[in-house]
Amino acid sequence: MFVLGIDPGLSRCGYCVLDGTGRKATAVAMGVMRTSPDDAVWDRLAMLQTDVRALLAEYDIAAVALERVVFGANVSTASGVLQAAGVVMCEAVGAGAAVAEYAPSQIKEAVTGWGAAPKDQVGQMVASLLGLSEIPRPADAADAAAIALCHLAMAPLAARAATAGFGGIR
Amino acid sequence: MFVLGIDPGLSRCGYCVLDGTGRKATAVAMGVMRTSPDDAVWDRLAMLQTDVRALLAEYDIAAVALERVVFGANVSTASGVLQAAGVVMCEAVGAGAAVAEYAPSQIKEAVTGWGAAPKDQVGQMVASLLGLSEIPRPADAADAAAIALCHLAMAPLAARAATAGFGGIR
Repeated sequence: MFVLGIDPGLSRCGYCVLDGTGRKATAVAMGVMRTSPDDAVWDRLAMLQTDVRALLAEYDIAAVALERVVFGANVSTASGVLQAAGVVMCEAVGAGAAVAEYAPSQIKEAVTGWGAAPKDQVGQMVASLLGLSEIPRPADAADAAAIALCHLAMAPLAARAATAGFGGIR
Repeated sequence: MFVLGIDPGLSRCGYCVLDGTGRKATAVAMGVMRTSPDDAVWDRLAMLQTDVRALLAEYDIAAVALERVVFGANVSTASGVLQAAGVVMCEAVGAGAAVAEYAPSQIKEAVTGWGAAPKDQVGQMVASLLGLSEIPRPADAADAAAIALCHLAMAPLAARAATAGFGGIR
């Protein structure tokens, strides 16, 4: 199963395509989609849309996992991040992929076992889980990998919960 | 020139297609695109994307004008509004339309001559400018009409400013 992890952003949107299930996964593609603050917001969103669409078309993505946007002090940055996430989400649905959002603490917990783990520890676990000799760079790509790993760890649980809740026990 | 005014929202996204220039315009289409709060955010964004794409395909839209999202007390509502606006923006660019955003006070000022005009007065001016016997309903559609009228009033000024600034005086 191919999972696309997305660390949403307008200036820098981290992505990572993983092939795997549960905690067994290999990184297929990883990087950052960038747009320039010199361009209009709508042009930047359209560029991101084109890039995301290309990723979705290149790999047979079963699920897109995003980090949930948390409002910090900087509302103007949050706007761009939210809009970027929105564009990724509707492109994912359009491409027939499942979509999931995870809180930052869920992602850290899934990858390191500790919801308040420092960034460095998350990066080291990402490298270890994916069998990489060092932490992926740039950081947005490593974050996107953590998000995709979180989804691989959580999705089977979510599927079981859905079955128990809606389908009952057979 | 066809202008699409958008009052962005996820539950209710007002739209109005105007045919005109300056203050002379007729309403070609007007309404509200709705999605249900019972659905996942990504599915709602994808439905909005489909609806916006259909509007852009049906009319030869030269410009899409949106009301700028202002952060109020309700951050969770603002998230949906921002994401809806983001989806509309990138679809507009993809369809080759120009995009513009206007602050609520700019829209009121352009339509009524007063940036703090009450909602009712805006609605009455919209009806008057479009030669309608009453204020369009629902309110989101009337707001979208005001946004499109604002663009028709402002766009010639913006074009002249751009010529003076970048092209110089010939």
